[in-house]
Amino acid sequence: MTLPRSYDGQACPLAIALEVVGERWTLLILRDLFFGVTRFTDLQVHLDVPRAILSARLARLVDAGVAERRAYAPGRSEHVLTEAGLELWPIVHQLMQWGERHLVADGPVRLFAHAGCGTELAHDGGCPACGTAPPPVDIETRPGTGVPRVVRTDRISVALRRPHRLLTPV
Amino acid sequence: MTLPRSYDGQACPLAIALEVVGERWTLLILRDLFFGVTRFTDLQVHLDVPRAILSARLARLVDAGVAERRAYAPGRSEHVLTEAGLELWPIVHQLMQWGERHLVADGPVRLFAHAGCGTELAHDGGCPACGTAPPPVDIETRPGTGVPRVVRTDRISVALRRPHRLLTPV
Repeated sequence: MTLPRSYDGQACPLAIALEVVGERWTLLILRDLFFGVTRFTDLQVHLDVPRAILSARLARLVDAGVAERRAYAPGRSEHVLTEAGLELWPIVHQLMQWGERHLVADGPVRLFAHAGCGTELAHDGGCPACGTAPPPVDIETRPGTGVPRVVRTDRISVALRRPHRLLTPV
Repeated sequence: MTLPRSYDGQACPLAIALEVVGERWTLLILRDLFFGVTRFTDLQVHLDVPRAILSARLARLVDAGVAERRAYAPGRSEHVLTEAGLELWPIVHQLMQWGERHLVADGPVRLFAHAGCGTELAHDGGCPACGTAPPPVDIETRPGTGVPRVVRTDRISVALRRPHRLLTPV
């Protein structure tokens, strides 16, 4: 599958990266894959995005080696992050943290903690207690005290209001 | 100036952040502001983007408190990053590094070093020699050995082929 390049005239690896992850909705899809939302129907319910857009974005991520499609039951498939995809965690996390700090008035809306020791992660993704940067599989997320601008009632949003380990199926 | 929200139904601070920095071209504009490309004409030449798009993106960044417009000569203005804008450096840098590692075949197109000690930065933006994460003002960039997919000949691209301190006017 060949998709048109978006920034053909740009040589910078940032432009090349944005051709893969910079399309509208793609970083929110990646966030959901980190959150363990991997099935097409669940992604569609949670993101409330047209099926055709979700399908095209997932295909692009597979095409670029960021996600893999795999069967979880006969005739049913899900998308999981590859090693390259997992390396996007610091970017997803830090952009979310930047939004919390600068654009959410009464934040934080969502918290991330090192599952091993329960310590809340710093802005840069490090665990202040352990001095390490835990990988997503060792991170637990839960809602913060901030009031989100909308309260979604779909089943994935409701499930993610309970503490949840990243990459664990919702 | 009120601009339409892009992800109205999404409560996540990542969605809110993407409403500010996730539009097409915006992260490349931010990269250029970090590189010291701050004047409208220079940005337009370097990015080769329609003037109306560049103008709208800069206005959005000012509106969101990420950049400020200021005069550098009578009747002439430039855009510089605010403190909130400067905090986007780890995201811009790490996404660029991710692109280098996974999407550029023949090795880094662009290098970043801690200006204080000359040590090349790690993927996470830290200086391996000093054990710190230098702020942009303490970082020098220069081309790497990788072959970019296009070789741009505009004056800003040519200027950025010499070692250059971030945030210093090109």
